[in-house]
Amino acid sequence: MNDCVFCKIVQGEIPSAKVYEDDDAMAFLDIHPVKKGHTLVIPKKHFETIMVIPDELLKKVIAIVKKLTPAVIKAVNADGAVVTQTNNEAAGQSVPHLHFHIIPRYRNDGLKFWPQGKHEEGEIRQFQEKIKKALTY
Amino acid sequence: MNDCVFCKIVQGEIPSAKVYEDDDAMAFLDIHPVKKGHTLVIPKKHFETIMVIPDELLKKVIAIVKKLTPAVIKAVNADGAVVTQTNNEAAGQSVPHLHFHIIPRYRNDGLKFWPQGKHEEGEIRQFQEKIKKALTY
Repeated sequence: MNDCVFCKIVQGEIPSAKVYEDDDAMAFLDIHPVKKGHTLVIPKKHFETIMVIPDELLKKVIAIVKKLTPAVIKAVNADGAVVTQTNNEAAGQSVPHLHFHIIPRYRNDGLKFWPQGKHEEGEIRQFQEKIKKALTY
Repeated sequence: MNDCVFCKIVQGEIPSAKVYEDDDAMAFLDIHPVKKGHTLVIPKKHFETIMVIPDELLKKVIAIVKKLTPAVIKAVNADGAVVTQTNNEAAGQSVPHLHFHIIPRYRNDGLKFWPQGKHEEGEIRQFQEKIKKALTY
């Protein structure tokens, strides 16, 4: 897409600290890292979210995420990593080109998962039925 | 694994609000949802992290995540969703059985991505080289 920052990175029009590239995917360091070494993995072709990328390309991208996760951990001597991916602006997606974040984590690094509550009994069955119904097999 | 909560859910020894199941993967509502409708997708077979699951199974699991994300969004009338996955206890992984969270998001729902900083110029090149070196092709 013409005005997509990540498409421009793929095209080499915007520089990046690239760590991996093949025919389908690319990975580079996030310029706004949550932790040093924070890496992004993207498909080269422009798809906005996980919901619209073709299965075959998504599978190639996730295999690269898998390959890169231990490399990122090793490179920065981390204790683990979070893999995360946002869909739509409401979810915090700032660049509308599908990207997986690999964020190095350390014991007691101060980062927290979002607060968790609970589903009420009746409600959980209701959501269960709605999700099953919304799934198109 | 004998003492794994998710293996017990797979075996039916612990009940769950299941929304999807096939030979390789299963999805159910998180009992501690960040937002109502929060769903987990797991491989049935026990693998601790994305780093150790075989590629072929990971690809099947991510295809189910893709299929479920729009269904979860639709079911709870959300505006988007975050897909996230933790590796190792230091990363906040509370159940050591690989799981992808699908968390519904809404415009102005108050959830924030972790604070982001920046890599220094010399440092970014250093991490780039280290990650490339740590990648085993």
